[in-house]
Amino acid sequence: MSSSHSYCRACGKLTEYRIPPGDSLLRQCCNSCGEIHYDNPKLVLGTLPVWQDKVLLCKRAIEPRLGYWTLPAGFMENNESTAQAALRETDEEAGADIELQELYTLISVPHISQIHGIYRARLLSPNFAPGEETLEARLFAEDEIPWDDIAFRTIKLTLQHFFADRKQNHFPFRSLEISAPPPA
Amino acid sequence: MSSSHSYCRACGKLTEYRIPPGDSLLRQCCNSCGEIHYDNPKLVLGTLPVWQDKVLLCKRAIEPRLGYWTLPAGFMENNESTAQAALRETDEEAGADIELQELYTLISVPHISQIHGIYRARLLSPNFAPGEETLEARLFAEDEIPWDDIAFRTIKLTLQHFFADRKQNHFPFRSLEISAPPPA
Repeated sequence: MSSSHSYCRACGKLTEYRIPPGDSLLRQCCNSCGEIHYDNPKLVLGTLPVWQDKVLLCKRAIEPRLGYWTLPAGFMENNESTAQAALRETDEEAGADIELQELYTLISVPHISQIHGIYRARLLSPNFAPGEETLEARLFAEDEIPWDDIAFRTIKLTLQHFFADRKQNHFPFRSLEISAPPPA
Repeated sequence: MSSSHSYCRACGKLTEYRIPPGDSLLRQCCNSCGEIHYDNPKLVLGTLPVWQDKVLLCKRAIEPRLGYWTLPAGFMENNESTAQAALRETDEEAGADIELQELYTLISVPHISQIHGIYRARLLSPNFAPGEETLEARLFAEDEIPWDDIAFRTIKLTLQHFFADRKQNHFPFRSLEISAPPPA
């Protein structure tokens, strides 16, 4: 919603960005029909699936970060719970059969208006059927993790916490936040 | 996005709901410019502020549930973290000065495509300055809670867990889900 010209979803007329009465933020406002359109952060849900001492990673077949490795995850849809979203994404991206455990990390990424939530999960089988958005689904032991080729910082952070927590066999829920990377 | 006629935000032309190639859900698609508009669940963030043995509730000045009591909470905005959203809403709705503690409950409400997250918080003063959306902000001991006049089920559930957990002085994070109420 950052383009300079936006139209009203309700009536199709050109809208303008202004602060509505009683509000404090710029909103997409329609001067024709009066509709105010809100734009809100999006939730990404996924899992950290474990088989014996290994974790499942997926090699991305799509942008952003095509060719990099990630945990199975994706945008939560309307009319589902966070747990349902995590299960669905794990099935869609990896074709993995899992038993969902607890929500493990919830990481705010304010500069892109996203929140990433990852559940721990038990793999019920080491066989996968990657979907269209995944080039390859593979199990990695800790010393095999391609740390320099992990697609997203939230996923790297979740994996780092997981391997540290595994040494204690204690996996406390973590609510975290990451800021924008320094300019290149 | 449930109206039968919706227009394209990018070009203003009439759109149609169909399943795009490679997708499995109905999306608002523009046949003129090709844009696909996604609609996703919204996060509501707030706090459970505590002063001595009492908790802060706010009487709603707006619909839905005008006149009912709730915890200070509201829609998360773009470019903020969940913690920032909870702090901002507590300030806006109650004018309460708090120290934020841990995220305490995260409750999916799939039938309205919302997720409600409540942090525990310490009140630094028992003085409040309710905003425009609040008729009254008041402290309640456990036996004073107006259980029949709590605005939302997610808030009632969070308060019930809080008073039970307080007896053990142990407040584990809870990821929960509620389904649609039975038809009246």
